[in-house]
Amino acid sequence: MTVNIINIGDELLIGQVVNTNASVMSRLLTGAGIEVNRIAVVGDNATDIRAALDSAIGSANAVLITGGLGPTKDDITKHLLCEYFGSELVESPVALANVKRIFESRGYELTPINRAQALVPRCCQVLNNDLGTAPAMLFERGGKVVISLPGVPFEMDWLMRNRVLPALKERFDIGTVTTKNILVQGIGESFLSDLIEPWETVLPPTVRLAYLPSAGMVKLRLTHRAADNKPSVDLGSLTQGLYQLAGQYIVGEDCESLAELVHSRFVASGLTLASAESCTGGTIASALTAQAGASAYFKGGIVAYSNEAKENLLGVERATLLAHGAVSEATVRQMAEGARRQLKSDYAVATTGIAGPDGGTPDKPVGTVWVAVATPQTTVAQLLQLGSNRRQQNIDRTVNHVMALLLRLMK
Amino acid sequence: MTVNIINIGDELLIGQVVNTNASVMSRLLTGAGIEVNRIAVVGDNATDIRAALDSAIGSANAVLITGGLGPTKDDITKHLLCEYFGSELVESPVALANVKRIFESRGYELTPINRAQALVPRCCQVLNNDLGTAPAMLFERGGKVVISLPGVPFEMDWLMRNRVLPALKERFDIGTVTTKNILVQGIGESFLSDLIEPWETVLPPTVRLAYLPSAGMVKLRLTHRAADNKPSVDLGSLTQGLYQLAGQYIVGEDCESLAELVHSRFVASGLTLASAESCTGGTIASALTAQAGASAYFKGGIVAYSNEAKENLLGVERATLLAHGAVSEATVRQMAEGARRQLKSDYAVATTGIAGPDGGTPDKPVGTVWVAVATPQTTVAQLLQLGSNRRQQNIDRTVNHVMALLLRLMK
Repeated sequence: MTVNIINIGDELLIGQVVNTNASVMSRLLTGAGIEVNRIAVVGDNATDIRAALDSAIGSANAVLITGGLGPTKDDITKHLLCEYFGSELVESPVALANVKRIFESRGYELTPINRAQALVPRCCQVLNNDLGTAPAMLFERGGKVVISLPGVPFEMDWLMRNRVLPALKERFDIGTVTTKNILVQGIGESFLSDLIEPWETVLPPTVRLAYLPSAGMVKLRLTHRAADNKPSVDLGSLTQGLYQLAGQYIVGEDCESLAELVHSRFVASGLTLASAESCTGGTIASALTAQAGASAYFKGGIVAYSNEAKENLLGVERATLLAHGAVSEATVRQMAEGARRQLKSDYAVATTGIAGPDGGTPDKPVGTVWVAVATPQTTVAQLLQLGSNRRQQNIDRTVNHVMALLLRLMK
Repeated sequence: MTVNIINIGDELLIGQVVNTNASVMSRLLTGAGIEVNRIAVVGDNATDIRAALDSAIGSANAVLITGGLGPTKDDITKHLLCEYFGSELVESPVALANVKRIFESRGYELTPINRAQALVPRCCQVLNNDLGTAPAMLFERGGKVVISLPGVPFEMDWLMRNRVLPALKERFDIGTVTTKNILVQGIGESFLSDLIEPWETVLPPTVRLAYLPSAGMVKLRLTHRAADNKPSVDLGSLTQGLYQLAGQYIVGEDCESLAELVHSRFVASGLTLASAESCTGGTIASALTAQAGASAYFKGGIVAYSNEAKENLLGVERATLLAHGAVSEATVRQMAEGARRQLKSDYAVATTGIAGPDGGTPDKPVGTVWVAVATPQTTVAQLLQLGSNRRQQNIDRTVNHVMALLLRLMK
């Protein structure tokens, strides 16, 4: 069972929008045991869409299309599919009821341009869109399935989970897929690859290993595909060999990110956390609070971007700042302890450094960062020399480093 | 002059990595006047790569490929290209010198696996990669150009600007492209489309308008393509008609985001800014400090996620919290004023609300958000009813709303 994805939109080809739809769709399909073997991005242009559709239908069992279903002029997908499948547009009562419901709930008047959203090719099956006015449409021909979805990310996401995956599972025989993530920090991808080679080479043939590096860490992803309904390999026991070789670098498993791991550990433990950020500028707080329920453990954070803020809000001593500078072990320790004290939390993390691209000195080049974690027992500080002047990467690596340090100290 | 992009990598097809390379490449190419007419994503798999290459060469003047150039087993692009162009691998002295330089600078020993990075097909032209060990490789055949780039985002970015675009400009006749962004906030895409239709319909044929909606705002992007070296349309004067129709919704122009606009306005004015965030949890601070030089105006921020933090760090009165709750006009005003006072800034922004997906009440449903801006003269608060329980979207819309309010008050 293979799927091709076609994402339609000029905004994708001019690079103004990052194609997150493709990754969300791929992740959902992969998770359901369906292989995506190609993604194509084309513009709002009939010739290119038709060519992509021909090619996709030829190389996969199902084709999922996003985009071009809005009410504006450049949205041509529906008309093109109607012609492609030799059909004609008719008003769908189901889709119309949905459009009316949405307009009523928002207190807007239904205009003709919006009512036209309920027009669909006669030959398609409407997959109702609870979150928006454009329905998804399913076409079948010669054992192949083509589904057209709106490109609005949250509508697409909801439709994938609630309409598209069930429709595919009904029509195709999809085995069982199990996956396991292991988060590794403190070792580069190629060194990790050398280290775990003895384990990797003897993985069962139904298990695939992917290295997913990002900002100073590597996520290892094991995927096991079984032809029938029962996994034949237990990925949990399989990782024991990995722990023997690289245990010291493993921070956690069964989650997508360190922020997620921090979240679940703190929620489970009942402990609380605070942050004091200089060079990461609120990115730690933002990553934690992006997760629903963060208020259960995250008391708050202080983005102390100026020395004044470090003194006034975190209680860093002026003498320390004068003697050692803002980027120093003494400062980062006082920041972590200050956050813990001010926000009355069990743990606190702190960062201060030179994210770049400018602002370095011979003593403290760009990429020099101090991080600290204050715990109920002690405060641990570490120096990072990131050796790079890429600002966002330095910020992201610092965030991952301090989160990994926090998780290690919680053990 | 058209380009096809092929991004290679299983990690893209299983949705573990968002394909930001495609959008960065498209943006750089579009900005240089080169049209991208198709993006294809395929796995680390010779058959699929070859098929994508055949199809791309058939439909564009140049093909840019990323990925599969690393030292690990699953990196097959180089070998495949070597075979595709009927060549053989030889050690490139230029590439080897670069690999040695990089290993020396990091103090690592050069292993055979890393030395192999300097092997390239004899028929290609090496485009040296100052930031990494895998060089880019340029192939020419029958007037078409194929360039293979590493998939590491910052290496690809640097190579695109410094090697690929110059190489394409040398070989192809590329006209001139000018673009202009206009940031619009406070009106939905379809209402905006209706409002500015009289202006849109009379745009010159060489000018294209794109609507790029995101989190409560719309970026309008005008692109003018001239066949020769001189633009024939002045996009600046063209926007006058837009201001007449929708001026009240226009927050600024010539930038990519509201955070960028806030950054440039504050840097230019010499004024300073602080933030007090509850429901946006540090996202405002993070967006501002992601920009190099933010310390010129951003004094810092307080992520007051708990009531305790609102009281202790921002000086919100307990009586206010008890009488009106954390999500209230009185609280958000005191938060903004507290941040301005504590961080000694000219302006301060504040947010407090229920981002969701849970936590709403009949009185204050999920999506109820108060924002405020404290200025040297006054404090302005606004209530948002976002009508949605999508957490990240509520956070992003709140961030955009309060930044737009700040910019309007600075005028």
